[in-house]
Amino acid sequence: MRPIFTPNTKKGNHTSAPILLDSAEAEIMLALRKRERISRTEVSTITGWSKAKAAQEIKSLIDKGLLIEVGEGSSQGGRRPGLLSLNNLLGYIIGLDIGATSLDVVLADVTGQIIQRISDNADVRVKPEQFLGRCIELINQMIEAHGIHAYQILGIGIGVPGPVDFVHGILVAPPLMPDWENFPIRNFFTDIFSSAFVVVDNDVNIMALGEQRMGNGVGVDNFIYVKIGTGIGAGIVSNGRIHRGSDGYAGDIGHICVDKQGPVCRCGNQGCLEAMTAGPAIAEKAMQAARNGNSQILSRLMETNGGVLYPEDVNTACRDGDIAALEIIRTSGQMIGEVLASFVIFFNPSHIFISGGIANFGNHLLVSIRRAVLRRSLPLATAHLSINFSNANSNAGTIGALALVREYLFMVEDDPNLIV
Amino acid sequence: MRPIFTPNTKKGNHTSAPILLDSAEAEIMLALRKRERISRTEVSTITGWSKAKAAQEIKSLIDKGLLIEVGEGSSQGGRRPGLLSLNNLLGYIIGLDIGATSLDVVLADVTGQIIQRISDNADVRVKPEQFLGRCIELINQMIEAHGIHAYQILGIGIGVPGPVDFVHGILVAPPLMPDWENFPIRNFFTDIFSSAFVVVDNDVNIMALGEQRMGNGVGVDNFIYVKIGTGIGAGIVSNGRIHRGSDGYAGDIGHICVDKQGPVCRCGNQGCLEAMTAGPAIAEKAMQAARNGNSQILSRLMETNGGVLYPEDVNTACRDGDIAALEIIRTSGQMIGEVLASFVIFFNPSHIFISGGIANFGNHLLVSIRRAVLRRSLPLATAHLSINFSNANSNAGTIGALALVREYLFMVEDDPNLIV
Repeated sequence: MRPIFTPNTKKGNHTSAPILLDSAEAEIMLALRKRERISRTEVSTITGWSKAKAAQEIKSLIDKGLLIEVGEGSSQGGRRPGLLSLNNLLGYIIGLDIGATSLDVVLADVTGQIIQRISDNADVRVKPEQFLGRCIELINQMIEAHGIHAYQILGIGIGVPGPVDFVHGILVAPPLMPDWENFPIRNFFTDIFSSAFVVVDNDVNIMALGEQRMGNGVGVDNFIYVKIGTGIGAGIVSNGRIHRGSDGYAGDIGHICVDKQGPVCRCGNQGCLEAMTAGPAIAEKAMQAARNGNSQILSRLMETNGGVLYPEDVNTACRDGDIAALEIIRTSGQMIGEVLASFVIFFNPSHIFISGGIANFGNHLLVSIRRAVLRRSLPLATAHLSINFSNANSNAGTIGALALVREYLFMVEDDPNLIV
Repeated sequence: MRPIFTPNTKKGNHTSAPILLDSAEAEIMLALRKRERISRTEVSTITGWSKAKAAQEIKSLIDKGLLIEVGEGSSQGGRRPGLLSLNNLLGYIIGLDIGATSLDVVLADVTGQIIQRISDNADVRVKPEQFLGRCIELINQMIEAHGIHAYQILGIGIGVPGPVDFVHGILVAPPLMPDWENFPIRNFFTDIFSSAFVVVDNDVNIMALGEQRMGNGVGVDNFIYVKIGTGIGAGIVSNGRIHRGSDGYAGDIGHICVDKQGPVCRCGNQGCLEAMTAGPAIAEKAMQAARNGNSQILSRLMETNGGVLYPEDVNTACRDGDIAALEIIRTSGQMIGEVLASFVIFFNPSHIFISGGIANFGNHLLVSIRRAVLRRSLPLATAHLSINFSNANSNAGTIGALALVREYLFMVEDDPNLIV
């Protein structure tokens, strides 16, 4: 029997023992992780228990205050079945999606129902105390606005843009945010929200989880979620579960070497995929084209900007029919596709979802990725492969962060990625 | 409730309904899948049930003839605990490991205890009816020798050297054995062994499973198992489970293109990894070296063989200090390592296990693979990475085939790779 749930319902009761569920009770809680409501008959169908046993286990959870009755479902001929849901008064959870230049915070009840969302610009290059202090300010603003106390926060799920040692919840050698290395993110939050269970994961992993919960990834068991922005990273789902790898660094594909003579990456190596194809590389190539007189449109934009170009400018130029800009975007897509091709053979996903700031550039990038994957991969592996944009996209991170923390609130299975 | 177990204990009773286990009973059977014996206290610990409930569920399984008492364990102070095991009289299972040129068959009781093993030369290029007919002959010989009837065979696990549509148990576009495409392997066996549940999987997948059950992969949750022989393939374990991908073709890494101008592969493409580095390529390069006068040792061996060289000859020459042979082996290792390097970044395994006929060539190959992976991969992904030989190796396939069929005998979980 393992501790599963920590609903501290009395103020100041920060050190109360967690409520322990037996495996039968836990099975019901797990079934509710992916649906909002459930009938007694459904519990009996899912678990294989007799109706009497299902009713008894449900009663035990209602008595403990974990489940509540929430009206009636439609009748299948007889009496209309009573529906059950998690007791949303148990408490609240927070989802935090930290990007290189952005911050999204959501407050939800324990059933996952979103109460408020705040998005803000941010810069992860500052000290973690400063950045996370700002996060806590935002959380406090939100909960105060809804009359929620800190001790009612039962879980916080956090996505960060770098390699995460998932078991210990720390960033390891993050190129984008060196000051965060080994910073105890979980403690920083539990010092304030002592009732909360805090889970930290890589940002693309939580986006993949978000896509699986509410996007095109619903019901998809084997997929790769690729984020292309300032950097490039992948979230991997195998047999329906996030694959984090043995240390938590799986999917760090932005640092695969595609050209030994290529430009120096922020990680220190040469010719990494992201140094060749992500946002900054696209902007850099565009500035070269402008300087070399290869594109009047880019030159004009660069002048307007006071001598620099941003990735968005390349997109603008491309939309205006600029050949040089189109070529830069196509080349990025092709290189990314060539790298993905070998993962398609290795992993045989049914879907690849593309997201991130650069993905928003639209179809030119997507088409080049598709072409390269199809050309370089095997017919067997691509026959049923779909390569498309993420449709959870900007919300995927926060949705995934909420889903992640909910998984651990109701955790019972022996999880290889057990958090210590 | 799902059918789990089909012990047809009466002769001729081939169409009896499967025994249905409820989820509590099934939990005990699952716990026994990975251990031979279990005490009532252990059942209670694993499941989180009260001792009374554990005892009651165990009694129900004993009454159904699925469990038996098998003596006493060591005392922890009080009475010595009674131990339980699967009832080995329930029936028998067969593991079949089909290689390109070899065939291994094992007979085991339903607890996985091996009774007899037969290994034979074979050639998968013949028609499947002929090849599988020979398999059935061998199985019949074995069971007759032990007084076992066909109806007592409860499961057959089969590994085949090609891409397998796991859900339907058929080979799809197997380059090595084109006649087998879409051949209904399962039916071929159930026509004779009608009580048996037949599972067909790719040979490297079952080897990976074997390594996980009895080799260096015990307790390892994220690893890649690479077989290098006539071809090259990988078995992938993610979060403790075989990752087959969405169609079942994951791990088909022998057909990753490493040189667009390279030699034509048996799959029809050019410059596939296996066409450049596996057994036949090694032999071909050695014959070139012999013909070009680059190696006296290889020339001598080629004369002795009547004008041809086999991969084993290259190994022999290498051991005798031949530089050309050493270079051929090293080049293969390096190319394989370079391909593996990107999967190390993508997948972050803790272990890579190398096996197969070419792996037996020893350390030169292994060292070249290691070097290339370390040079091409990221420090973060390789810091805790071990690259070593499989130690289950030649037995991995049959052990894995038995483990596979045992998983499905006691299947209760909702398995994404559900067999139809």
